Order: sequence, then C-alpha cells, then structure tokens
Amino acid sequence: MVSKSGSLVDRSWRPLKRTPAVKATILTIGDEILIGQIVNTNAAWMGERLVEIGVSPAKMVVVPDQADRIAESLREAMVASNVVLVTGGLGPTHDDITRDVVADVFDTTLETDEEILSIVRERFARRGWDMPASNHSQALVPAGFEAVANPAGTAPLLLGRFDHPDGPGLLACMPGVPYEMQHFMDAEVLPRIRCMEGAPTIIQKTLLTVGIGESHMTERLAGVEDYLVEGVQLAFLPNLRTLRLRLSSTRSQREGHEALSRLEAFIRDRAGRWIFGEGEETLEGVLGDKLLEAGATVATAESCTGGFVAHRLTNVPGSSDWFMGGVVSYDNAVKVEQLGVSESTLREFGAVSEQTAREMAEGVRNRLRTSIGLSTTGILGPGGGTESKPVGTFWMGISSSIGTRAVRLRLGNDRMRNKERASTALLDLLRRELQRMMEGDSESFHNS
Amino acid sequence: MVSKSGSLVDRSWRPLKRTPAVKATILTIGDEILIGQIVNTNAAWMGERLVEIGVSPAKMVVVPDQADRIAESLREAMVASNVVLVTGGLGPTHDDITRDVVADVFDTTLETDEEILSIVRERFARRGWDMPASNHSQALVPAGFEAVANPAGTAPLLLGRFDHPDGPGLLACMPGVPYEMQHFMDAEVLPRIRCMEGAPTIIQKTLLTVGIGESHMTERLAGVEDYLVEGVQLAFLPNLRTLRLRLSSTRSQREGHEALSRLEAFIRDRAGRWIFGEGEETLEGVLGDKLLEAGATVATAESCTGGFVAHRLTNVPGSSDWFMGGVVSYDNAVKVEQLGVSESTLREFGAVSEQTAREMAEGVRNRLRTSIGLSTTGILGPGGGTESKPVGTFWMGISSSIGTRAVRLRLGNDRMRNKERASTALLDLLRRELQRMMEGDSESFHNS
Repeated sequence: MVSKSGSLVDRSWRPLKRTPAVKATILTIGDEILIGQIVNTNAAWMGERLVEIGVSPAKMVVVPDQADRIAESLREAMVASNVVLVTGGLGPTHDDITRDVVADVFDTTLETDEEILSIVRERFARRGWDMPASNHSQALVPAGFEAVANPAGTAPLLLGRFDHPDGPGLLACMPGVPYEMQHFMDAEVLPRIRCMEGAPTIIQKTLLTVGIGESHMTERLAGVEDYLVEGVQLAFLPNLRTLRLRLSSTRSQREGHEALSRLEAFIRDRAGRWIFGEGEETLEGVLGDKLLEAGATVATAESCTGGFVAHRLTNVPGSSDWFMGGVVSYDNAVKVEQLGVSESTLREFGAVSEQTAREMAEGVRNRLRTSIGLSTTGILGPGGGTESKPVGTFWMGISSSIGTRAVRLRLGNDRMRNKERASTALLDLLRRELQRMMEGDSESFHNS
Repeated sequence: MVSKSGSLVDRSWRPLKRTPAVKATILTIGDEILIGQIVNTNAAWMGERLVEIGVSPAKMVVVPDQADRIAESLREAMVASNVVLVTGGLGPTHDDITRDVVADVFDTTLETDEEILSIVRERFARRGWDMPASNHSQALVPAGFEAVANPAGTAPLLLGRFDHPDGPGLLACMPGVPYEMQHFMDAEVLPRIRCMEGAPTIIQKTLLTVGIGESHMTERLAGVEDYLVEGVQLAFLPNLRTLRLRLSSTRSQREGHEALSRLEAFIRDRAGRWIFGEGEETLEGVLGDKLLEAGATVATAESCTGGFVAHRLTNVPGSSDWFMGGVVSYDNAVKVEQLGVSESTLREFGAVSEQTAREMAEGVRNRLRTSIGLSTTGILGPGGGTESKPVGTFWMGISSSIGTRAVRLRLGNDRMRNKERASTALLDLLRRELQRMMEGDSESFHNS
C-alpha cells in the first residue's frame, strides 16, 4: 500500500479480490519504460479504465524489446488472464517485434492486410510522400487476427482470440503512443471486453469534491454503509487537487441506477457543499463556466504562487472570455506600484499578512477592472521562514461586489506541493464566493 | 517502442541486451497502482537509477495486495534475476502483507527486531504519542534478514540474500512512499548492488541541452562513433523541456574517465552552444544562478503562456533574489494599461505580432525596473486561430541593455504542450541573451 486510506476505501477495494470472471493482464513492451526514461502512464490509464467497467486488472508487467522475454510474458499472461492488453513494439523499426512474437506464440504466420496497407500508403501520399519500405510491416497481421486501422498513426490494433479455462480470451496489441492507445481502448477494446462472458454490467458516476480531506469526508458520510448494498461500491480517489468519489454498481441496469441514485442523494445531502462537478470536469473549467454564466471576470495578484493560479486558469480553452490577466508581484515594489498596496501596510504588517492579501485582491480588481480579484501571499519554502511567520504561512484574498476578505492557511514545507495546495484553496474560495454572489446578491453583482 | 529515436539511441540501448551478470526485477505491490489511482513512478525512478550504475532492469511487475500473487511473483523474480527490488505492503495495516509473504517464501518466521521497535516507539514518543499496537508489526523481520531503520517513516528496509545460479542474490523490500524508497535505494540498496559479483564499474555524466531536437543533435554529432569504444555509451534522453545526453563507461576507472573526457570534449566542441548544465540541474535553476552572478533581474509579460513562465521561474528556491514579478496580460486592455503597449500597435499589427511582443518586453522591463524583460504572445489553441494567424503562431520577446528583439516560433495544436514548448523556448532565449550580455557588452549591462 503506497497510501493509507479510510475504511470506505478499503470497503471499495475489497471487491477486487473477489476474483471476477474477467481478469486482465497489462503487458507493456519497451526498453524505455524499463530504464525509467518514460513513466508507465499507459498502464495506469488502462488500469483505471478497466476498473471503471468493473474488470479487475490482475497484473501489470513491463518487459524489454526482446523476443524471448515478450513471448514468455505473453504465454504467462494468457494462462493467468482471459484479457491481455499489450502496448508497444508495433512500430516500423527493427526494434518493433511484437507482431512477430505474437505470430510465433500463436504458431501462425504474418499475412499482409491489403486494406491496412492501402490506408497506411494513403496516409503518406496525403503528405506527398512515398511510403518508406519499412512501413510495409505495419500491414502485417498474424493469420486469424483482426486488424483495425489507426486513425492517428500507422500501427493498427491487432485483436486475437485464445482459449482460456474461463472461456474465450481476448488479446489486444496496441501502439504505445498514449492517444493512439487510448483511442483503441475506448473505441474497440473496452466494448469487446464488456461483451465477454462474465463481464459485469457496471454503472458508475464520479462526483468531484474540493476543500475536504479523506478523513473528514469519511466522517461526513457516516451511515453510508446502509446504501452500499451488494454490488454497490463507493471509492475515494484523492489527489493533490481534488477528492473524487466514485459510485459504481455491478447490479442489473434498473437496480443499479436506483441504488446509485439513492447513494448519490445521500452523499449530496451530507457533502454537497464540497461537490463542484462530475466525471472528467476540472475545477478551473467549472469555474470558467460559472463566471461566463454570471457574466463575471476575474484577475489574479500572485506573490508566493508566482503565476501558478493564472497558469491553471489559462489552461482552460476559451479562458480569455473571463480571465483578464494578473500581476505576479514577487517583489514588494511591484505590490506597491502595480497593485497599489500601501507602503505603510507592508511596513506595519509585512508582505505575508491579511492586510496585504486584501489590498492585493482589491488592487488587481480595481486596476484590471474585473468583477473579482484574487490574491496570494505566503512563504512556500524551503527557505524564507521566520519565527512569527514560518515556512507554510499563507494568506489568500478575494475581492468582489460583496466585499473583500482574506483567509489564512497553514501549508507544509514542500514548495511544489504548497503551490498546488495554495492554488487549489484559492480556486475553492472563488467557487464559494461565486455561489454566495449568485445566491445572495445577484443584482449588485451583475452591475459590478 | 513508445518513441522513435535516432541511431545513437539504438546504439546506446543495445548494451542492455548483452545480459550483464547483474539482472534486476522491480516488483511493485499495491492495488492502487493496478487500478490506476497512482502511476508507477517508483518503478521508473528505480529503473533509471539501476541503469545509471550499469545494471539492466529485466522486468517490472505490479501485483495486488494478495498473498498468493505476491508469493508467486517473488518466486518467479528470484529465479529470473539476482536482484529483486520490492516496494509496498510494509505499512502497519492488515492490507500490508509483504513481510508475512516474504517469511513464507523464505520458509522462515518473523522475529521482533528490538532496535527497530525502540526506534519506531521513540518516533511516536517524540510527538507525545503512544505507539499504536498495530505498529509493532513494523519491527517484525524475517529471520536471517537485515533490517535498516527508516529515518523518515516507520517501515524499515528489509534485506535478504538468496541463492541464484549467477551467485548470491539480493532481495530488498522497501516502503512505497517515494522519498522513503529513494532514500533506501541511494543509501543502502544501490551501494550493495555495486558490490555484487559481476556488477559493472560504471562512470557516467549527463549533459543537459535545450533548443535542439534529437535528429539535429544526431547530425551535429556525426563522427561520434569514433569515441564510442567498447564499453563506452552515449544515450539521448529527450523530454518536452530538454534533451539530456548521458555519457557512460563500464571500462576500468582510469580508462573510463579518459574515454568519457574525450567523448565530452567532442560533444562540447560540436554542440556546446546548446549545453546549459549537467546532472540534476534545471534550466530555470541555471538561469537563476547566472542572473544572480550577473547581478541582473528579470520580469515577465505573458499573454498566451498565462503565467506559466513566471511559475517555472518561481519554482526555483530563492528566485525572489532575481525574479521581480510579471504581468499576465491576457486581455488587450491589460497590455495597454499595465505594460504600455500602444493601442495603435494592437490595431495595426494585432496582439500576436512581433511589434506587440517587443513592446510587452520593453514595457514590463521599464515598469518593473528590471535588467531584462521577457514576453509571450500567441495562439495556443485549440480555438482562436485565423487564416493569417493559425493556432500555433507564437511570438516571444526579450528586452535588455543590449536591445529588444522578438522571435517567432511555430507551435502545434496542443494547448498544454504549447505552453511547455513556448516557455522553454523563451527561457532558452534568456539563456542566450545572458551569454551575449556577459560576453559582449558586460559593462553597459552591469550599469543597466
């Protein structure tokens, strides 16, 4: 166990150990993963997707670009699992030997798939190039396998069936390029797995929360056990920014939907104020939608976060509709001259203070003429702490038509983690402010 | 193969396949990796460290917190490899079963290590807490194993020896918390591996380059083959920000140092202008040192990068000594009012233009009174492109005592990748400007 979690998480992980009828091995081929040049995010992505459709990943294996090692791992995987997902080794170079090894293991030959070949050739032709001879290998398919053309690259998806004690097994060989693999998984592989005998009917929903930790959430959801009937699960998926709650059911469609509705209603009743979205949404994206809806604009005045809040907001496509800009006021002179923080405030209370955070938020709101101003000032470490203001001291401010306020937070010692936590806390403050503005005082807000 | 590389890379990877005498399996234990909640960065880190000391990682395996699966994988690993690195499952909860499984596989019992127990107890006592009973398990060690106390957590490192055809094998069980694992690897495990029979004597050095791609670097280094004598290798390690060149030798100390010196001299002669640092340095950190050395300060005016450049610069501890601040001028009004870009420039040439980039760099340098001003303006996508200025159009500017200029770059369609590439290109521009300033015109620069 890398991280420790509350009892709800343990509960939700337990069902993985019931050994469902569909078991998957994820086999990654490539020296560059083994030597640590590339982190195996593909395997994590596939693992998460499998869990979402109720299938338990049983094992992940990484082997080098060597025929004997690949063959051995492939054979082991097809004994242990009835779903084997392979990535890598499908390119056109001499290092790419997956298709040869697969043909060997299946004791069959490689045949040219003329349809794939013409698609690959056409892809080069469209750019005015001749297809290099080495790319002929992209159209070689083990006899008896199904090949699906790659809309983004040249390596096709190769699908084979094999005998397994639990029924017919599925072998899928995919390119290692993440978005090509992801496309094949979503469009071809996962739908086939869901049709396999023994595959669970899974219904699921993810609620996104911010501003609350696992243990506090566990407390808030006391009594949730009553909603976690057979086949209904709740998983906590925390990261530095959000705590995701994944509700899932392996019961029948009708029963599942009913059970999840009841569970969701319970969670929203107990923890609704921390829920900001669902599924694949991001906090920044949701905030952008809300700002747009309210016709409001925002500007940032950042000291310690050094531009990270603006960076996160501008990661949202179309953010120029509601984000006007900001000032990174690392130096105190910039706070004074670009934001209008008064020198006496800095002298009397210091740069890391409630008063400075307030004046920064007000200042950027006034100078950039936005509905809302946000600010950060603090000591993120590793150096720069004092006795009265140790590393981790952090103030954030918000100014809008309903007033200006600053909130203090106690962060840790890690500079990068502190930037993450500080920016998330500030975005959460904006979320709650928008709620207050839209509920309480929408008239004056629209006119601001 | 996930990514394609030039011939030098192939050359450097080939030696991995020579099956050196020390072979390692990396075994990760934990449901949270399998279900994709956590990406297996530990395995990548360990793989990279092993390669650095000349040991080939032969396989990476991830298994769930289940005794039979762990035992099976452990037995397989101890047959296939003489070094087995295990992480996870050493915590104090009932899910943490690694030490029990190891004792089973070695057919031995668990014994309390009194020294470890007193260290763990003392760690709780220092915080004024009684040690929870469950933490007693942290001091249980398989008989015959060596236990090393954890300076950061409670789970110790467990080291066992086993018989292997290639000589005595080493089993190391480490906690899954990254920095605890990293500490044990560097302080205890890697030194022991280097002492094993058959472990290569490796000498290595990494040169960091920016502003040049793999294929261009391959061209520049034509003729490098003459320096890659038996046991001397050069590997290209590219990522979004830099291209690292790893020089390594498995020859004797003296011969190795000589061979690497010759190789490095050749590389510096051919590609020195792209080399910005060595080893674990970062471009931002190196720039900070250079700015400090020159007594220079910098400010940023960011449009399309939305604060990301300021964020990268302020990730450097102590950056407040040379980074004064910046303006994120997303809206054109902010460009005019906060940076002094003229309205006629915006009208005539548009926000994404050489002229605007220049005025932004000059403006932020003047207003924040720094030695150097940096600017970005562009269309990072996915939307916002026009026929004359398609998505990917990007201008960056720099203003200093030796003048103001703007440079155009053609980026792609991916917003996040574009932010990475644009910010790296701008930092590289700053690097080259600093070089010019310090070489050519240091007098006027210091007086700026």
